[in-house]
Amino acid sequence: MTERGRFITLEGIEGVGKTTAVARIEAALRRGGRKVITTREPGGTPLGERIRELLLVPTATPMAALTELLLMFAARAQHLAEVIEPALGAGHDVVCDRFTDASYAYQGGGRGVDKGLIAQAEDMVHRHRQPDLTLLLDAPPALGLARARGRGAPDRFEQEQVEFFSRVRAAYLERARSAPDRFVIVDATRELAEVASELDRIIERRLL
Amino acid sequence: MTERGRFITLEGIEGVGKTTAVARIEAALRRGGRKVITTREPGGTPLGERIRELLLVPTATPMAALTELLLMFAARAQHLAEVIEPALGAGHDVVCDRFTDASYAYQGGGRGVDKGLIAQAEDMVHRHRQPDLTLLLDAPPALGLARARGRGAPDRFEQEQVEFFSRVRAAYLERARSAPDRFVIVDATRELAEVASELDRIIERRLL
Repeated sequence: MTERGRFITLEGIEGVGKTTAVARIEAALRRGGRKVITTREPGGTPLGERIRELLLVPTATPMAALTELLLMFAARAQHLAEVIEPALGAGHDVVCDRFTDASYAYQGGGRGVDKGLIAQAEDMVHRHRQPDLTLLLDAPPALGLARARGRGAPDRFEQEQVEFFSRVRAAYLERARSAPDRFVIVDATRELAEVASELDRIIERRLL
Repeated sequence: MTERGRFITLEGIEGVGKTTAVARIEAALRRGGRKVITTREPGGTPLGERIRELLLVPTATPMAALTELLLMFAARAQHLAEVIEPALGAGHDVVCDRFTDASYAYQGGGRGVDKGLIAQAEDMVHRHRQPDLTLLLDAPPALGLARARGRGAPDRFEQEQVEFFSRVRAAYLERARSAPDRFVIVDATRELAEVASELDRIIERRLL
């Protein structure tokens, strides 16, 4: 019988180094003999990437916060059905750049959507599936935003003010405190090399 | 004080004449001195029309039924916030080509999504807003599909088999039976002129 894969999620605000971290975790898992796929949200499927576009492109009229939440979960439902569940079932580890904790942080903390509504959507879409491990890359918004804004035209989220990201960060930290067995908080203000070796150690200790 | 507008929805499967009916109802309301806007789902806003495109264009990999449901309600949340609620609040009647009954008929009846999940989405998006009047244009699928397929390349729904639309029709009729005060079932197998004068009579009796 195939051993089930493990579901690992990366969380954190803009510019904390999630993309680099995904690659590092993938490499560590492969060194440990695991089969791995990496993916991201919103997106991860052809349809999900089109939904991502709707979510990230600045709009002429404001997008309702509930619309944003439902688009995130629509993309997520497709991602679970088409990619995540089949991969886990086939024994592959899945490393995912953002998942439902991001909905609590951005739509909940950032936009002020009621947490009960987010929990309702979570319940509809993946009542029985939770990440096995979530790495929260934590840094103050000013630092991350400076990095993210060096990358080109800001997307609809990056256009938000620093207060928005302070609320997002606070909501992430609250999520981490409420599920300490699943979360590891990684201090992302340090040198990249230092963060990378901590990620290696976490993967070795928790998953290999 | 401005009198609140009334919210009128048109429902029915492909090819039963909803577009013609919307125009007829709009004209009848205007003759009665009402201010009216007409709109449609999925769609009705710039963002909603882009979501509509995702929903209707045939996809290479199957869309998960839950994804379809959440995309419908994401477009609906935007439609309510941006168009329907402001119009009703300003005293305009809103005539809408399809609304949440269509989610029960297509995603519920057609795709087999659990009705409890649809009710959960409805509760999230418009707990306190229901149509004042719903006109269900009813005809056997074979008749409607023959009309709809004369229009050009079939969309992702029109590609379904006749059994799919039989389930959709049955779910619509069940919705109508469960809310007899809100629904009027209109026999759409008759001549257009006959259907049109019945619509006029219903509007005059119920709304003017």
